[in-house]
Amino acid sequence: MITAETAERLKLAIRSIPDFPKPGVLFRDITPVLQSPELFRQVIDAFTDIYEGRKINVVAAIESRGFIFAAPVSLRLNAGFVPLRKSGKLPYMTYKVHYSLEYALEAMEMHVDALKPGQRVLLMDDLLATGGTAQAACRLIQQAGGIVESIAFFIELSDLKGREKLHGYEVISLVQFP
Amino acid sequence: MITAETAERLKLAIRSIPDFPKPGVLFRDITPVLQSPELFRQVIDAFTDIYEGRKINVVAAIESRGFIFAAPVSLRLNAGFVPLRKSGKLPYMTYKVHYSLEYALEAMEMHVDALKPGQRVLLMDDLLATGGTAQAACRLIQQAGGIVESIAFFIELSDLKGREKLHGYEVISLVQFP
Repeated sequence: MITAETAERLKLAIRSIPDFPKPGVLFRDITPVLQSPELFRQVIDAFTDIYEGRKINVVAAIESRGFIFAAPVSLRLNAGFVPLRKSGKLPYMTYKVHYSLEYALEAMEMHVDALKPGQRVLLMDDLLATGGTAQAACRLIQQAGGIVESIAFFIELSDLKGREKLHGYEVISLVQFP
Repeated sequence: MITAETAERLKLAIRSIPDFPKPGVLFRDITPVLQSPELFRQVIDAFTDIYEGRKINVVAAIESRGFIFAAPVSLRLNAGFVPLRKSGKLPYMTYKVHYSLEYALEAMEMHVDALKPGQRVLLMDDLLATGGTAQAACRLIQQAGGIVESIAFFIELSDLKGREKLHGYEVISLVQFP
């Protein structure tokens, strides 16, 4: 797990940027954490501690910041790495889901042979906001016959209640902001 | 380094997809490598062997497949991770370069405080084609006062002569296709 002290250090390193990507949004910028080998390692260590010893076959990563966490975690857990990407990026046959995010209609794809039925999947992304993207990712995983074992985020924006949208799934976040 | 046997195993796992993203292009799909914990680990081990013990402060990663290799390698080398992203994605003040890629004009950004002057940078991406993207990334790194210590790719498409465009830099690739 993660100690309160480590969580506090990580929160202090996250940079808050007002009005990005649009007016009224306070963006949580994780690049200062990634830039510090020590802090980035603490994040990956925390995820590893949580999931080590659990039966996870595949870590599925939401493009593109999710890749940054999911790649090292998949190696630590000795699990496969599967990218979930925006429409048109994956070259082979795909499953595709559409979902709405605020004003825009988005689509996400996963290769049809990315998972074997019954495989246990840890879904990862950098940040949980409304939960719409993660919910779409769960649908993709289940369409392929995978089992969503857990969903892990570095940051959770609690006021946006993404956790409620993801009810029925285990949801883990390392640090929380309102 | 990487043994001829490992390189051959990796090449066999890479899936070739004709006419993606457009007619006439043979796309090299790395997802089967990532999906295998053993093969993915061999890739990261190979990069680690090459760069361990060299003075690398930062691993700079080209969005988004570059993130998948650069994140684990930065942790192994105890170096910072810095994302180089498409225009408009990074929230803080950025350096920006424009470059042309076939028909399109592209732009890439890096945070202005991503590097300290004099830091030694390993630039990583999944694939070396014409070298245009990596060349733009080198300009970004140098604009911030960083030193491009080496450029590493998982795959090199030799016939496209990206290596020539990157002359003056050390260029490493683990597997090569014509």
